[in-house]
Amino acid sequence: MRAAILAVGSELLGTERLDTNSLRLTETLLRHGVDLRRKSVIGDVEEEIAAELRDCLPRVDLMLVTGGLGPTADDVTREAVAAATGRSLALDPEVLAGIERRFQALGWTMPAVNRRQAMVIAGAEVLANSRGSAPGMRLLAGAATIFLFPGVPGELAGMVEDHLEPWLAPRSGGVSRETAVLKVAGLPESLVEERIAPAYDEFGRESITILARPADVRLLATATGPPAERQARLQAMTARLAALVGDAVYSRREEDTLESVIGDLLRAAGATLTVAESCTGGLLGERLTAVAGSSDYFLGGAITYDDRLKTAMLGVPPELLAAHGAVSEAVARAMAEGVRARLGSDYGAAVTGIAGPGGGSAAKPVGTVHLAIAGPPRTPGLAGVEVDHRQLRLPGGRERIRWMSSQIALDMLRRRLLAAAQGGGGQAAALPEAAAGGRPRRGS
Amino acid sequence: MRAAILAVGSELLGTERLDTNSLRLTETLLRHGVDLRRKSVIGDVEEEIAAELRDCLPRVDLMLVTGGLGPTADDVTREAVAAATGRSLALDPEVLAGIERRFQALGWTMPAVNRRQAMVIAGAEVLANSRGSAPGMRLLAGAATIFLFPGVPGELAGMVEDHLEPWLAPRSGGVSRETAVLKVAGLPESLVEERIAPAYDEFGRESITILARPADVRLLATATGPPAERQARLQAMTARLAALVGDAVYSRREEDTLESVIGDLLRAAGATLTVAESCTGGLLGERLTAVAGSSDYFLGGAITYDDRLKTAMLGVPPELLAAHGAVSEAVARAMAEGVRARLGSDYGAAVTGIAGPGGGSAAKPVGTVHLAIAGPPRTPGLAGVEVDHRQLRLPGGRERIRWMSSQIALDMLRRRLLAAAQGGGGQAAALPEAAAGGRPRRGS
Repeated sequence: MRAAILAVGSELLGTERLDTNSLRLTETLLRHGVDLRRKSVIGDVEEEIAAELRDCLPRVDLMLVTGGLGPTADDVTREAVAAATGRSLALDPEVLAGIERRFQALGWTMPAVNRRQAMVIAGAEVLANSRGSAPGMRLLAGAATIFLFPGVPGELAGMVEDHLEPWLAPRSGGVSRETAVLKVAGLPESLVEERIAPAYDEFGRESITILARPADVRLLATATGPPAERQARLQAMTARLAALVGDAVYSRREEDTLESVIGDLLRAAGATLTVAESCTGGLLGERLTAVAGSSDYFLGGAITYDDRLKTAMLGVPPELLAAHGAVSEAVARAMAEGVRARLGSDYGAAVTGIAGPGGGSAAKPVGTVHLAIAGPPRTPGLAGVEVDHRQLRLPGGRERIRWMSSQIALDMLRRRLLAAAQGGGGQAAALPEAAAGGRPRRGS
Repeated sequence: MRAAILAVGSELLGTERLDTNSLRLTETLLRHGVDLRRKSVIGDVEEEIAAELRDCLPRVDLMLVTGGLGPTADDVTREAVAAATGRSLALDPEVLAGIERRFQALGWTMPAVNRRQAMVIAGAEVLANSRGSAPGMRLLAGAATIFLFPGVPGELAGMVEDHLEPWLAPRSGGVSRETAVLKVAGLPESLVEERIAPAYDEFGRESITILARPADVRLLATATGPPAERQARLQAMTARLAALVGDAVYSRREEDTLESVIGDLLRAAGATLTVAESCTGGLLGERLTAVAGSSDYFLGGAITYDDRLKTAMLGVPPELLAAHGAVSEAVARAMAEGVRARLGSDYGAAVTGIAGPGGGSAAKPVGTVHLAIAGPPRTPGLAGVEVDHRQLRLPGGRERIRWMSSQIALDMLRRRLLAAAQGGGGQAAALPEAAAGGRPRRGS
C-alpha cells in the first residue's frame, strides 16, 4: 500500500512551525507496513490544495490530509477535496446536531461559524472526533482512499487511534513492523557506530537506526514480517547489539531516561543522593528531580559557582583551591566527599569544570571538567568512603559542555550503583530490569 | 514571485526527522517578499522526484530543491532533475578537479564514489559549496528557475548566503520584509492576545504573530514595502504593542533571554544573586548559569529537596516547617532570606512548591507554588531586607509546573531589579536597553 500525507495550513509555510503531525501518522503507517511516498504542505488556498490532490491521487492508495477543517473562512480543505474529486458538499443535519450538543455540554451556544464544520462531502463517511468540534471524513477517489483529519495534534492523535488504526489493521494484515530500542549513555555516536558495525553486516544497515544527541544515543532495531518471525529477529538483533555495545547500554525501555534508571537503582538500594555543582549550575539536580518521585532518594545539593561557596557549603579547604585551582581532581573529590558528609547522603556526585566561552587557559582549556562520585566502598562490609574520579576534555560550546558533563556524571553514578548492587562487581552489563530487583530497601 | 521547496531524502519520511532546512529557506524567501506556495518531501527515488518536479514547475517561478547531492548511489537528485527537465548529465572536469583539491587539502585521496558529485546537468550553472564536497546547481526549466542545494544544514546555510541571496536581491527589489520582536514574560498567551487586540485592528491580524511556550511569549511584528515606509510602520507597531502589553515586555532583542536580561540588570547594579530551590531542583540555577559570564553576579545556591536541608542549609526553623508546611509563604520567605544571608549575596530567590504528580492535597493541590525574592529595600537609603512573595496555582504536569515556576520567579526578580534601578519606582516598563546603563558597578 502506497501513501501520501498532505498537511494544510498557511502557518506551516512560515519560518517558525513545521508539520509535526506527519510524524504521528508515519509511525502508524510504518508499523502497518505501508509505504509512505511523499509528504507535502500547502497553504489555506483551495485551488492549490485541489491541484496537489489531483497530482497525488493517481499515484497512491491512501491519502491522509490534515488541517483546514476548522470553522473559519480560512478552512477550505472540505471545499478543495470536494472540487478535486468532483463531488458536492452539503450540510449534514446529524453532524450539525452533534456539534451543537458538544457546545451545549460545555455550557455554550454554538457560534454560527461552526455550521461550516457540518458540511459533508457527498458519499463520504463522517469520522467522529471525540476531542474537538471538527469531524473527520473518509471517502474514495478512484482506487485511492482519502482521510481528512483535523490538524490540532491532540485531536489528530485521537482520530488516528479511533479511525485510521482500525481501518488499516485488516487491510495491512495487522501490525507488520516492530521496533525495539537500546539506550546508550556516555559514548559518542561514532564510537557506537563502530562497535555495532558487525550487526549492520548481519542484519542489514536499513534495519538499524542510530539517533544521537551528545553522549546519549538511541539504537532502534526494526523487524518486519509475521509476528513470530519478526519477534525472533528483533530478539536476535537486540541481543547482538547489546553484546556489541556492552555496559554503555542503560535501558531497553523507551520510557526510561538515564535519570530514571539511576532513580530505580537508588530506590532498590535504599540509598540517598546529593549533588555538588559548579559549572553545571543546577543542571544535575534539575535532571535528577525531573523524575516523579525523586524525593524518595534525592535529598538536594549545593550549587557552588563562586569558589568561596565551595569552602562554606562543602568544606573544600581554601588551601586545596589555592594549590590546585577549582577545576581539579583534588577539588572534585573534596566536593563529592563534602556534599555527602555535610548533607548526610549515601552518595555524593560532584562536577567542576570550565564551560566557556571564557575562563580557559593552556593548561586547562575550555571543556576541561572533573567529575567525582563519593559513596560507600564497592566491596561489601568495608567501612569508609570510596571516591571515583574522571577528567574530561569536552568539545563544543557552553551548552554542550554542560550537558555532556551532566550526562557523563550520571553515567558514572549509574555504573557505580550497578557495581554496588552486584556486590562489588566491576563492569558487568546488567540492564535496569535485572538490577531493579537487587537488594532490599534499607531506608533513608 | 511564487516559490516551492522540495526536500529529498528517505530519512525525512521516517518517524524521527523533519525537514528543517525549509525554515532557513523560508526565512530568506519571506524577507524578499517571495510567495512560498508549497513544501514537499520525497524519498530517494528518481521517478518520484521527477514526477514532483513535473507537477510543480508549471505553477511556480522558483523551485528550491535540497538534498540528494551526496556521493552514494542513493543520491539521485541530479538524475531526477535532468530527467524532469529533459536534459543530459555529464562529468564536468573542472568540478571534479575542485572536489579532488578539497580532499587533498584535508590530506586524503578522493574516494572514487565522489566522482558522482562532478556530474553536471547540461546548461546548469555550478554553484560552489565552500563547506562541503557537493556543489549546487542553478538551471532554467521553462519560465522557472531551479536551485539544487546540498541537504546538510550547515552547507545549505552557506549556499543560501553565497548563491540564493545574491540572486534574489535584484529580482525582488532587495529586502522587502522586516520583522521586529517583543519578548514577554509571565503572562499566558491568551492574556497577551487579549491585550494586543487593538493592534490587530489597527495594523491587520496577518502582520502580528504570537509564538508562545508556557509563560514566555514572543510577539513578531512584520512590515513590508520600501525601507523607509516599512521601518516607520515597524516602529509604530512595536511602540503600540509595547504600550498595550506593558511591563511584561522584557526585551526587544531576539538574542535576549529572561536570564540574560536579569544578568544585565544585576551586572549594571553591581549586585549578586543566590537561589534556594525545592520543587525546581536546580532549574533556576541551571537557567541563570546558562548565560556566559554569569559568574560575574551568580554566586550559587542550595537545592533543598528534603525538608531537613531547608533547615540545615538555609536556617529555616523546624517550627516554621511544622506549622505551615514546606510549601507555604512563610517557608518561601525564610528560604529567600536564609540563602541571601548564609551565602552572602545581595538578592536571594526561593521556590517551594508541589510539582506532582504526587504530594498534593485539597488545601495544597499539585501546582501550588510559593515564590520569594529577598533583597535590599526598594527605597534608596533604607536599611534591612525587603521580601516579595507570590503564590501560584499552576496548571499542567510536572515539567510544565517546574518550568513556569522558574519563569515566574525570574520575572519577579526582573521586576524587582528594574524597580531598584529606578530608585524605588514601582511598575514602570523600562526595557533592558534603558536599564543596562543605569547605576555604576559597586563590585561584588
